Amino acid sequence: MALVVQKYGGSSVADAAGIKRVAQRIVATKKAGNDVVVVVSAMGDTTDELLDLAQQVSPLPPGRELDMLLTSGERISMALLAMAIASVGYEARSFTGSQAGVITDSTHGKARIIDVTPGRIQEAIGEGQIAIVAGFQGVSQNTKDITTLGRGGSDTTAVALAAALDADVCEIYTDVDGVFTADPRIVPAARKIPRISYDEMMELAACGAKILHLRCVEYARRFNLPIHVRSSFSTKEGTWVVSDPDSEGNEMEQPIISGVAHDRSEAKITVVGVPDKVGEAATIFKTLADAEINIDMIVQNVSAAATGRTDISFTLPATDGSAALTALKKVQERIGFESLQFDDQIGKVSLVGAGMRSHPGVTATFFAALADAGVNIEMISTSEIRISVIVGLDEVDAAVTAAHRAFDLDADQVEAVVYGGTGR
Amino acid sequence: MALVVQKYGGSSVADAAGIKRVAQRIVATKKAGNDVVVVVSAMGDTTDELLDLAQQVSPLPPGRELDMLLTSGERISMALLAMAIASVGYEARSFTGSQAGVITDSTHGKARIIDVTPGRIQEAIGEGQIAIVAGFQGVSQNTKDITTLGRGGSDTTAVALAAALDADVCEIYTDVDGVFTADPRIVPAARKIPRISYDEMMELAACGAKILHLRCVEYARRFNLPIHVRSSFSTKEGTWVVSDPDSEGNEMEQPIISGVAHDRSEAKITVVGVPDKVGEAATIFKTLADAEINIDMIVQNVSAAATGRTDISFTLPATDGSAALTALKKVQERIGFESLQFDDQIGKVSLVGAGMRSHPGVTATFFAALADAGVNIEMISTSEIRISVIVGLDEVDAAVTAAHRAFDLDADQVEAVVYGGTGR
Repeated sequence: MALVVQKYGGSSVADAAGIKRVAQRIVATKKAGNDVVVVVSAMGDTTDELLDLAQQVSPLPPGRELDMLLTSGERISMALLAMAIASVGYEARSFTGSQAGVITDSTHGKARIIDVTPGRIQEAIGEGQIAIVAGFQGVSQNTKDITTLGRGGSDTTAVALAAALDADVCEIYTDVDGVFTADPRIVPAARKIPRISYDEMMELAACGAKILHLRCVEYARRFNLPIHVRSSFSTKEGTWVVSDPDSEGNEMEQPIISGVAHDRSEAKITVVGVPDKVGEAATIFKTLADAEINIDMIVQNVSAAATGRTDISFTLPATDGSAALTALKKVQERIGFESLQFDDQIGKVSLVGAGMRSHPGVTATFFAALADAGVNIEMISTSEIRISVIVGLDEVDAAVTAAHRAFDLDADQVEAVVYGGTGR
Repeated sequence: MALVVQKYGGSSVADAAGIKRVAQRIVATKKAGNDVVVVVSAMGDTTDELLDLAQQVSPLPPGRELDMLLTSGERISMALLAMAIASVGYEARSFTGSQAGVITDSTHGKARIIDVTPGRIQEAIGEGQIAIVAGFQGVSQNTKDITTLGRGGSDTTAVALAAALDADVCEIYTDVDGVFTADPRIVPAARKIPRISYDEMMELAACGAKILHLRCVEYARRFNLPIHVRSSFSTKEGTWVVSDPDSEGNEMEQPIISGVAHDRSEAKITVVGVPDKVGEAATIFKTLADAEINIDMIVQNVSAAATGRTDISFTLPATDGSAALTALKKVQERIGFESLQFDDQIGKVSLVGAGMRSHPGVTATFFAALADAGVNIEMISTSEIRISVIVGLDEVDAAVTAAHRAFDLDADQVEAVVYGGTGR
């Protein structure tokens, strides 16, 4: 008998029919002899509808109240799910984040989990019940206020709860069959990845693969908890995210590259004509940090000897663009740079693969493939198991397709079935 | 500086515009120098919509999960109300029933308040904040599960909280101007009652006046807490419910009758041909009590000497009719009665007034007025300050109108403005 934690996103429980379907799947897992704990997101568009209501009464709602409002969404879906399970003859009990012991800090809207004390969940399991837990929410340790975990919050709830309960696996149900070697909407020949390491999955998540949030994979890695990403619309095996994906396979056949990720949400700012003195770059990035803007890639051009000035380019989330420009303009005089350029017509394409460590030719193959496809590289950054390039926004698809083919990732047959976006 | 507890029903916060309007009123009370605690119901039809969702997933949802589901309604309205208040520059914090310290028993769907420990509310008030509390809900003392208080629950929350906080007044906002001498939809000349005693208000509530729930008035009487029933659509004084309504008025001019209530929700069952032996009636009512059916009025005919049999009639909520008939049929053989008659074409009309105690002619005047109006009386019951009669359903309006006129309750001018039903 195993302890299985399952997480269902909003698209899986979008209506009464979806809730009943999910209930059947949960009951099937229970019938198979497992203890089952379920984490559920709000139904379909509930969160957006609640946000819309909030906008109608307040242009800038306080975070505490916004969290109080939004957390009602999971309360609805989890109670309905417990009812649906009860109606087919199995005992289920729903628990809010607070009742499930999800303790967080007090940062409303993007709280971090500090501790999980799942006493009531263990009690329910002990009595043979199926526990249904609200995803995305917790209770603050200091203020006892209700908090939300931000993007990817329900996945993080599931992994954190699975870790605290010492579960055998955390199953993340979504509307695609697993993690793919590239977005099948761009590369129809993309293949489902059967097993992948935490490190690679984290790089993919950080580089725009939306199927799992970075934070949830970090959490799983810390507790060495296997994640099984799979579709709630089929019974196929999905993708296992584990510490050592090669342990059950033949290491010789592991691909050098696990997948190609892309991200269209970034923008590039170039600070033109920065005096080439010690500390100027530091002032620029200190200014941005003070404005709570996260920087991704940075490139500093070689200084032109004649002028003693240089250009510094960096990328950031496009949504932070205007805040960054405002902050930088305030220090323009002090730093003495000439001007600012803003470009949101860019995209990031990343190759991720643990095999890179032992295959020095990867960069050359990647760049040659992009050149053959006529894609111009604007910026480059690398880690031990990743190479990312910034290209023009309209060249993202071509770059992804070229890289995917260059590393022999294309499947012989197209198998991907895509149903649309994922829940939170 | 006073401490004011205000309660707003679902019709007052039905949409964003309503929530903003209510926020303005709350802020006005705060600006006038009062501490304010607000109890709020779910928005408009939210509860019905949630019930409909529950029906879609389960024909008989477990009470615990139904309560978990329904309580999300107040969570939404209270968070939005707190946001609306914040957006006009005042600090507000919302609290669930559990956070507000509303401790109940474990009877899901109709829990009773055992204790109120409003520490967090007092803290918020102490910091100059407006506290917004979810009506209708609490947390069970034993199981720590979320409970709902049933019909009139938000009013009861408001009164219980006001009592625990030692508030100066509990204002119940609704969509009519106060408590009227009769339903203005039947009697356009009905007058608003400026002041009324707890006892009279309880009798009116028990006899069908829907403006306040019996339980909430009982609670207020126990703690001698003044209730001010008024409209959220105007600033007019409403009706004060107090222990001694005459203390500020001229007792000589107090009317004998405070108001005329009516109730169309009852039905009558007649058990025909009951053997006139000791204990038979007891068996009948024990059977009904075991089926958790509440009986209102009872009449036993004089036994016919020839047959040694009698008829017993009683009234009950029409919705309990079929359950009562089923329960009685099961004991028909044992008791030996002949048949059962069911009649839901009845109505109850009640006169309520503390002046009755010292005016013995009230019954005679009432019955004469009904006779003049051609209304036939089927059953009668009385208390110290109330006379109720059962009449035909289609004679209710005529009976109410006749009684209202007979006791000089008609206003010279019609002043009532009625906006429709009240919230929970």
